[in-house]
Amino acid sequence: MDGPVFDDAFRRRLRELLAWRRDVRRFRREPLPAGTLERLIAAACAAPSVGLSQPWRFVLVESAERRAAVLDVYRQCNAAALAVYSGEDAGSYARLKLAGLEEAPAHVAIFADRGGALGKGLGRNSMPETADYSVVAAIHTLWLVARADGIGLGWVSILDPQRMATLLDLPESWRFIAYLCLGYPEQPAESPELERLRWERRRPPDAFIYRR
Amino acid sequence: MDGPVFDDAFRRRLRELLAWRRDVRRFRREPLPAGTLERLIAAACAAPSVGLSQPWRFVLVESAERRAAVLDVYRQCNAAALAVYSGEDAGSYARLKLAGLEEAPAHVAIFADRGGALGKGLGRNSMPETADYSVVAAIHTLWLVARADGIGLGWVSILDPQRMATLLDLPESWRFIAYLCLGYPEQPAESPELERLRWERRRPPDAFIYRR
Repeated sequence: MDGPVFDDAFRRRLRELLAWRRDVRRFRREPLPAGTLERLIAAACAAPSVGLSQPWRFVLVESAERRAAVLDVYRQCNAAALAVYSGEDAGSYARLKLAGLEEAPAHVAIFADRGGALGKGLGRNSMPETADYSVVAAIHTLWLVARADGIGLGWVSILDPQRMATLLDLPESWRFIAYLCLGYPEQPAESPELERLRWERRRPPDAFIYRR
Repeated sequence: MDGPVFDDAFRRRLRELLAWRRDVRRFRREPLPAGTLERLIAAACAAPSVGLSQPWRFVLVESAERRAAVLDVYRQCNAAALAVYSGEDAGSYARLKLAGLEEAPAHVAIFADRGGALGKGLGRNSMPETADYSVVAAIHTLWLVARADGIGLGWVSILDPQRMATLLDLPESWRFIAYLCLGYPEQPAESPELERLRWERRRPPDAFIYRR
């Protein structure tokens, strides 16, 4: 079995998918069809994981109380983050919309279980943090598959990772990686909102390449 | 501008790409065409990054001396990892081929620069580790684009992250994330080698879903 051969047309579309994958913070409130999250998560489980450890834990946050508690943590962390800036940056930061927690119809918290037995520790002896990296690969997979379906995803990192497991009644040993908002985006975009609003711009790839 | 709409045919091919992306440890020695790594890295830079911080640093490891030094670290770390197992697992572990460092024509070390100025710290105040996660998203992007080109990638994590920056003469503040081997695979495969060799098996996605 030689496996599939991908042609130029597919590669072009894949590049388009990568170019139009966005961190979405502006969602329509319309719910996702039943079963959508489960389908996206199933696709995400095709991600690579160190030693086949599959350390990803997907928590569908459905209760209004839990969502309100997460929003509260976000507001506290965002206030603390704002306090780091001064002058023009402080004004710019305060005007940014950095999460769609109130509008997004679907919320998923993602954790890494570094202590999971699967994979028998292979590949994690000198770098236990690779379990977290596997979870990130699953999140990125979910993101791309969602975008291919016209569904937007926003990764909220302005949260206190120490509080998330308790807040969601999960094992303390699980490491919080990300909180995802999902839903239909108000407007697709080819460039990051932070670039359009002149917070930062993307640099050419050469700027990040070194030779040794 | 509404952005591209992806159809069922593309989504099927994308699922195939995800299903046939593998961690490759068995490479042909044939070199990649000139410019291949630069092209793959350019694609990887379309990955999401926290606050548009673009913390990825791609180090093309070309010198035979540096490659030999990396192989040496790998052998030390692999011996230490083997020592953790006993009985049947030790025998199984010893028989696994866990890296293609000697055959793969291209080596890329990947670091995260958490201290980089880009993005002005946005999104990293309460979770500085999200810089590392952005780098992982870039690696995963590179992996998929490589596979779409018929190029295999193996992620080597059996290394000492504390030694890699020094060994490659890079800033001590850069955090080592991964060492990648790239080249044409001996044989494409639809299932992980660790599963074929019965080290571990993939579990159904439902096993990883929780509701709160």
